[in-house]
Amino acid sequence: MKSPFKEIGGSITAPQGFLASGVFCDIKRLGTGKGSEKGKKRDLALIISEVPAAVAGMFTTNQVCAAPVKVCVQRVKQGTAQAIVVNSGNANACTGPRGLRDAVAMTEIVARQLHMPVDHVLVASTGRIGTPLPMVFVKRGILAAASRLGASSACDSEATEAILTSDTRAKQVAVEFKLGARTARIGGMCKGAGMIQPGMSSTGLRPASTPRHATMLCFITSDAAIEATALQAALHEAVALSFNRITVDGDMSTNDTVLALANGLAGNPAIVASDVRRLTFVHSKSAMRNPKLRDAAVFQSALNHVCLALAKMIVRDGEGVSRFVTVRVSGAESVADADAAARAVANSALVKTSWHGGDPNWGRIMDALGYSAAKIVEDKVDIAYSAPGSRQWTYSLKRGQPTRTPFQTLCAAVAAGEFDLHINLNLGRSSAAVYAADLTEEYVDFNKGDVSDPASLGG
Amino acid sequence: MKSPFKEIGGSITAPQGFLASGVFCDIKRLGTGKGSEKGKKRDLALIISEVPAAVAGMFTTNQVCAAPVKVCVQRVKQGTAQAIVVNSGNANACTGPRGLRDAVAMTEIVARQLHMPVDHVLVASTGRIGTPLPMVFVKRGILAAASRLGASSACDSEATEAILTSDTRAKQVAVEFKLGARTARIGGMCKGAGMIQPGMSSTGLRPASTPRHATMLCFITSDAAIEATALQAALHEAVALSFNRITVDGDMSTNDTVLALANGLAGNPAIVASDVRRLTFVHSKSAMRNPKLRDAAVFQSALNHVCLALAKMIVRDGEGVSRFVTVRVSGAESVADADAAARAVANSALVKTSWHGGDPNWGRIMDALGYSAAKIVEDKVDIAYSAPGSRQWTYSLKRGQPTRTPFQTLCAAVAAGEFDLHINLNLGRSSAAVYAADLTEEYVDFNKGDVSDPASLGG
Repeated sequence: MKSPFKEIGGSITAPQGFLASGVFCDIKRLGTGKGSEKGKKRDLALIISEVPAAVAGMFTTNQVCAAPVKVCVQRVKQGTAQAIVVNSGNANACTGPRGLRDAVAMTEIVARQLHMPVDHVLVASTGRIGTPLPMVFVKRGILAAASRLGASSACDSEATEAILTSDTRAKQVAVEFKLGARTARIGGMCKGAGMIQPGMSSTGLRPASTPRHATMLCFITSDAAIEATALQAALHEAVALSFNRITVDGDMSTNDTVLALANGLAGNPAIVASDVRRLTFVHSKSAMRNPKLRDAAVFQSALNHVCLALAKMIVRDGEGVSRFVTVRVSGAESVADADAAARAVANSALVKTSWHGGDPNWGRIMDALGYSAAKIVEDKVDIAYSAPGSRQWTYSLKRGQPTRTPFQTLCAAVAAGEFDLHINLNLGRSSAAVYAADLTEEYVDFNKGDVSDPASLGG
Repeated sequence: MKSPFKEIGGSITAPQGFLASGVFCDIKRLGTGKGSEKGKKRDLALIISEVPAAVAGMFTTNQVCAAPVKVCVQRVKQGTAQAIVVNSGNANACTGPRGLRDAVAMTEIVARQLHMPVDHVLVASTGRIGTPLPMVFVKRGILAAASRLGASSACDSEATEAILTSDTRAKQVAVEFKLGARTARIGGMCKGAGMIQPGMSSTGLRPASTPRHATMLCFITSDAAIEATALQAALHEAVALSFNRITVDGDMSTNDTVLALANGLAGNPAIVASDVRRLTFVHSKSAMRNPKLRDAAVFQSALNHVCLALAKMIVRDGEGVSRFVTVRVSGAESVADADAAARAVANSALVKTSWHGGDPNWGRIMDALGYSAAKIVEDKVDIAYSAPGSRQWTYSLKRGQPTRTPFQTLCAAVAAGEFDLHINLNLGRSSAAVYAADLTEEYVDFNKGDVSDPASLGG
């Protein structure tokens, strides 16, 4: 089937009616504090919709959750929002009642400046944990960002830059698709490089099956018309297949947040929640024959693409990462088993260091499978490698026994910067994929920080 | 109370009636293969008791478990053994039916050479996973080791060396104590440097509460008279408080094994299982007034000391380890919660790299607590540092809020090579300790291996 969407250039301002900006306001207090942007990475972004928009959100399930997350969880429930203010350099986490007052104050400054109800403003933060926000600087930044909104065509990339922390590059994508006769778009940007293994839910509460271990922030905009409950259902599905399936270091952050705004300016008949939920039970071909279901299906597939593309960018740009590995487990007795097996392998320090070394060490993979919560039978396991998405597999293990594939052939498969690792447990019909990274000296060096320079210390 | 035992020099041959030896037989097939010991680390050890001994064992709960573990689990059940043969350089794991035949063959060679029943011989292996043992070399090694038993006073340290893999130093301890009027001893040796977070049980089956994530091998000898079931109960307790409480990298090995032999030559009235089990319910002071309970209590405390001393040596000699941290969680709602909280902190890549950097980063500690399976209330958590065992604590966090302790004071607390990290959840009365290590560039460099030299690749 032809893809129902196409990638276009741009990011969060690609859909109609969205404006953005990004400024430097010295949130890390590097000392200038004068709003000078020379040589300093931007650290405060603003995203607004010209009209109130449907909103949906997914948040960290960490029991220690940052003040801005607490504010968003409450406001997203109302279903309508119009602005998002984001800072980098300080996570506003573990900051007590003062942190909560500061998060609310950020939204109040935006609301006052842009003349919108305060509860239509959302907030997100990322950076070091446990330090109060320098609110004088933050206020100055918000005022500067508000006055800059849409001032130039570069405002989009300024916002994309402003949300980054240890990221080495900006992460953005936008797609265009048809909803009936109307053309609609979804744009997105994200950040995240360490403390990455998100396990997000819409309430911030942890479902029993949720992975427990990321800071990643993602902001998605669309001009599609979609009810807030439908947007929440679609975002839940898209995050489950993307951000909740990546891991850099197995640590789940206090600040993980995905926010989506859809302002309806594309003018399509609004997508409703019942249609999004029916997609789970309807074959995609028959969905395409029903105009309403078709719109829901197209929107879902476009949103899935945006989330997965952004999620993979996070892993590829992970701290010190030199290899991107898709761990695909099949033949598990249950989806929970497939997921547990894939995560045990993807988070094993010994497996990850072997990837870094280009070592096709199936012994360490078997070891990790063996201690995972998944049921494993040693003499049933197959292990193979392939180029990403390729059907040409090189087996290192079949039914628990090493194949005759020469060691150098296996080394070549693992030497690639990106490869798929296929594990078949041969016990059942369930499968799962996790997008993972290697563990390098650079990761350790970066995260040990430099205590002689507290400003260098990460989140 | 005065310690009921004292440390003496020596290792596994300190108790009466034990002999040991260690030889080089080129198990890694480095090319000489001629049994030449010049410049080559010994790789095969033999330990024997002059008379049949009570035996107990604890084994990896990894579902992928090595052939020698499978053999030992069965034989230990009989309660009597007389010899242990151990090789390093090859784990004999994931080696299928051939691996099992090889493990049994190792015991058969020992039995034939030393004239004892084959099921009185135990076997252990450590090294790379997935390669069949070079049995011609192994047989030559066993014959050489058998002829060398007790040949010199250095045989003890030869055996200690022969079980090492990536360890940088030998690990041994011996203690002496009184059982009634008799003098008894316990000696022990162990190895382990990577793939370390044991979760052992006596059956190799995983109890629900067992930590899921080591290769470590440990061999303990005693001349005390103790029934096999009593020895098993005492070993279970000692391992729960020592080897099952350490973590280097969170990976649980396929080969973890602790074996204890007690040959009774000290001539004390035999310690029985019911007395060992009663210790749990009896205050140590009242135990000391009952001669039988007293013997059981003294033996248990001596065994606990031997296991904990050896377990700590493993962490201190962990691959690339530069810091030894005891993570003590108190105030948890349950022991399971205390354990989960301590392990989440001890295994967090971000916490471990911050220790390496000497960074007192309580934000990462709070983050790990928050995603652990333990119940946490952010504004109740206290975090403090101290020198090992010291009552002088330096608080970084009280009730979820940073203290006024200067950053440099906290840095000084974390700069030590060994320190205690105290976390009080202030929710209940349960506590747990985990012995942990930092994560360094050296760990990554060591474990990524060198694929151009397959012999260099670790387990």
